[in-house]
Amino acid sequence: MDIRPSLNQESEIPLYRQLGSYLQKLIEQGELHAGDRLPPTRELAGQLGLNRTTVSAAYDLLETEGLIRGEVGRGSYVCEGKARTQEPLNWSRALTPSASAGTVAGSSDVSINFTSSRPSEKLFPLEDFRECCREVLEGRNLKTLMQLGSPRGYEPLRKYILDHAAALGTARETDDILITNGCQQALDLLRRALIHPGDKVAVEEPVYPGVRNLFLEAGAELIGVRVGPNGIELDSLAKAFEAGAKTLVVTPCFQNPTGATIPAELRPRILAMARAAGAVVIENDIYSELAYTRLEVPRLKQLDGNVILLGSFSKIAFPGMRVGWILAPRPVIARVTELKQLSDLHTDHLSQAFLLKFAESGALDRHQKHVIATGREKLKAVDQACRRYLADCTWNLPAGGMNIWIDLPRGLDAVSLRGLAQQAGVDYLPGRYFSVSRSLDSGLRLSFAGLEPSEIRKGIEILGRLIRDAMESRDDRASRPELALV
Amino acid sequence: MDIRPSLNQESEIPLYRQLGSYLQKLIEQGELHAGDRLPPTRELAGQLGLNRTTVSAAYDLLETEGLIRGEVGRGSYVCEGKARTQEPLNWSRALTPSASAGTVAGSSDVSINFTSSRPSEKLFPLEDFRECCREVLEGRNLKTLMQLGSPRGYEPLRKYILDHAAALGTARETDDILITNGCQQALDLLRRALIHPGDKVAVEEPVYPGVRNLFLEAGAELIGVRVGPNGIELDSLAKAFEAGAKTLVVTPCFQNPTGATIPAELRPRILAMARAAGAVVIENDIYSELAYTRLEVPRLKQLDGNVILLGSFSKIAFPGMRVGWILAPRPVIARVTELKQLSDLHTDHLSQAFLLKFAESGALDRHQKHVIATGREKLKAVDQACRRYLADCTWNLPAGGMNIWIDLPRGLDAVSLRGLAQQAGVDYLPGRYFSVSRSLDSGLRLSFAGLEPSEIRKGIEILGRLIRDAMESRDDRASRPELALV
Repeated sequence: MDIRPSLNQESEIPLYRQLGSYLQKLIEQGELHAGDRLPPTRELAGQLGLNRTTVSAAYDLLETEGLIRGEVGRGSYVCEGKARTQEPLNWSRALTPSASAGTVAGSSDVSINFTSSRPSEKLFPLEDFRECCREVLEGRNLKTLMQLGSPRGYEPLRKYILDHAAALGTARETDDILITNGCQQALDLLRRALIHPGDKVAVEEPVYPGVRNLFLEAGAELIGVRVGPNGIELDSLAKAFEAGAKTLVVTPCFQNPTGATIPAELRPRILAMARAAGAVVIENDIYSELAYTRLEVPRLKQLDGNVILLGSFSKIAFPGMRVGWILAPRPVIARVTELKQLSDLHTDHLSQAFLLKFAESGALDRHQKHVIATGREKLKAVDQACRRYLADCTWNLPAGGMNIWIDLPRGLDAVSLRGLAQQAGVDYLPGRYFSVSRSLDSGLRLSFAGLEPSEIRKGIEILGRLIRDAMESRDDRASRPELALV
Repeated sequence: MDIRPSLNQESEIPLYRQLGSYLQKLIEQGELHAGDRLPPTRELAGQLGLNRTTVSAAYDLLETEGLIRGEVGRGSYVCEGKARTQEPLNWSRALTPSASAGTVAGSSDVSINFTSSRPSEKLFPLEDFRECCREVLEGRNLKTLMQLGSPRGYEPLRKYILDHAAALGTARETDDILITNGCQQALDLLRRALIHPGDKVAVEEPVYPGVRNLFLEAGAELIGVRVGPNGIELDSLAKAFEAGAKTLVVTPCFQNPTGATIPAELRPRILAMARAAGAVVIENDIYSELAYTRLEVPRLKQLDGNVILLGSFSKIAFPGMRVGWILAPRPVIARVTELKQLSDLHTDHLSQAFLLKFAESGALDRHQKHVIATGREKLKAVDQACRRYLADCTWNLPAGGMNIWIDLPRGLDAVSLRGLAQQAGVDYLPGRYFSVSRSLDSGLRLSFAGLEPSEIRKGIEILGRLIRDAMESRDDRASRPELALV
């Protein structure tokens, strides 16, 4: 049969591939049959005015697709249909199993969404930010920013954060800093630097799922430390250290998901316990700048130079730009820097430069003041609505951050309630997402920072109504004699 | 004594911290002595017009610094000097040991630097790039870009790369894509998705150190597959599979460090061997767009749908922006996406959007043509200079990419030669950086893409002179009767 492909020399699709696709179509359409012999490569090359290697490459393509079969000295033949399908690998055997205890999925089609601990994009100061980007893009430094950099991070940003931290008393002479892709990567690198499979790690319970799943994937054994109104509870922490925890991951300010803050007077005691246990303390400090009243507590890192401090621009500025940092004693930074280089060479340069400009220009401070002022209004709305509509629930109003934890009345379940809430246009995350070892479905997290005060009030009002309905049907069931017993 | 700190209410340093620093200074300067009692918190608060909790927090700070000691019911006392120092943790015991076989360090103070496999920033089309950034920054999408995104990557970029790959025949219906922070993170995520400690992994030898160190850190056992003029050698690959390798990491085009490309006719055979061994093939494809002559070879991924393909903008565009991808069957992408979320939530949004605009606007194509045209000139300079000055060495001229491998004359050593080269203002990386299990110091890598043709010629001329000198002194030593024997 005639082989007359229309090949395009100018196409970005290579010629051999164009020829291969053409031949494949002839086979699939039955114009070439099983057992048919293809023309020898030299002959077809001459006929089509192509390089012989082009034709060979096209034949190779068809052969590995199982469409033709080359026989030494005899040429290439079209295969039977059944030989044509390539076996997929057994991926379920090849891939490491997931150790994550469920991933968080918020529904996006509800009108009032309390599921995500993130800032409101309505507050983003786009004009200020654009101006900072413009300055960076027009700066003489742009060429260097687009070139490969140091795994430690963009040097001017490192210096800015380190100076800032020294002024605040969080950085000492013995400390150094590594820029990471947000706080999540900071946790991931520290996990690699500190944890062997089977190691015991103390985490808060309820806990941020990104911490829990990360350490579970690494084969660590997690010990949940109860979080109460004053943050992690000391008796529970003591048990974790007695059980052998050598690492503590803690968010002392406005913890996610509870919103709890550890009071100043308990902080030295926590550090003394960790020191006595020889444990490493990782202080997740990404929310503390979001204090809606003046925060008179020291960072753990200010109290003890051994603490590893994690910071980030994601909560106070823009989560879509992945820039955070680890501030820690030099030996720790040396090791995580090595791991950072293996992970992804270094953090994106442009975002580091944009955020530095944003901070240095004063725009970050202005933005933060604005975020805190609106946050105060949001928190007030949470407070008022909880008092008014959730009188049957238990909660502690946080003093900052993005989240509040609500404990439901006895016998109610946050998972069943969620289904009803979603139907009513409201969503939140039930306790199980934040569980380490206890069942937490009598509670739920409301992330309020992304919503307007009016949405917060409306959403909590709807939840309050659903909770009262659920309580009534619970009480009905309890008081009604079971028919079967009559 | 009088306690009269000058406190600044407007400072970003909290009051308790200011007070703490002031008291610390009094103690360190000897104005407060060991055993002195500090005023009760209530009294000092009244005296200074401060909140009592502020004074308490300052005392807590001093206490955890070991400067004062609180005694229940008796007040706080200044400690003896020796109690003041906080013990640093034993970090060398707490940190996981490094498994990396040496990190690559190029010297930066030589005038002709062949050490880094990166593009020349002189070629960066800054005006085109600025224009693309401006469009993104002024677009209506900016707010969304600055908000938290999907771990899978920026959807329009995913779609762009997937469509492009489908047109080239590298993406099938059964494939999906994950955006990563460059190719290094792609390798890191696949390492986590595929490798258990003790697993055997076949890698090229000489190998890119970022691959080797990553898999060593994961506790994998590496099997080096020899790279010759036609890329990995089939007999060596067969031995690796016989020894139990279940993963092969390979750079079929312009391999780093050798520059070798696997010819089209060998590719189906490599895939057949991997299939027979049930091994996963990871195709590192970051250099193949840098073909200085038309490249008539199919990607492995075009020949076998099971192949995992890695791409990146780093080599063809800007390494400082960390954007790459994994193109693979859906089960693989599902698993690495989960790991990506644990690693750093998602890749930086702005860089993804900038690079998409850069690609869609046609600027990437224009840039690539320019890079290839200048690369051709650079390669010509390499070819001419090697023929002229390195006649005693062995090398294979690559057809693209950024690197060439030079084997030194018998008896010469690339490490000793490097010291002389650095003194003469030239640097390169000796073979040991690329070694898996063999000694490779009879060879070296020249990364030429970042240099001008004139620098390439000059640098190779200097190397040639040093090599001839070293050969002469080698021959002198060999021909001269040893005095001790006379």
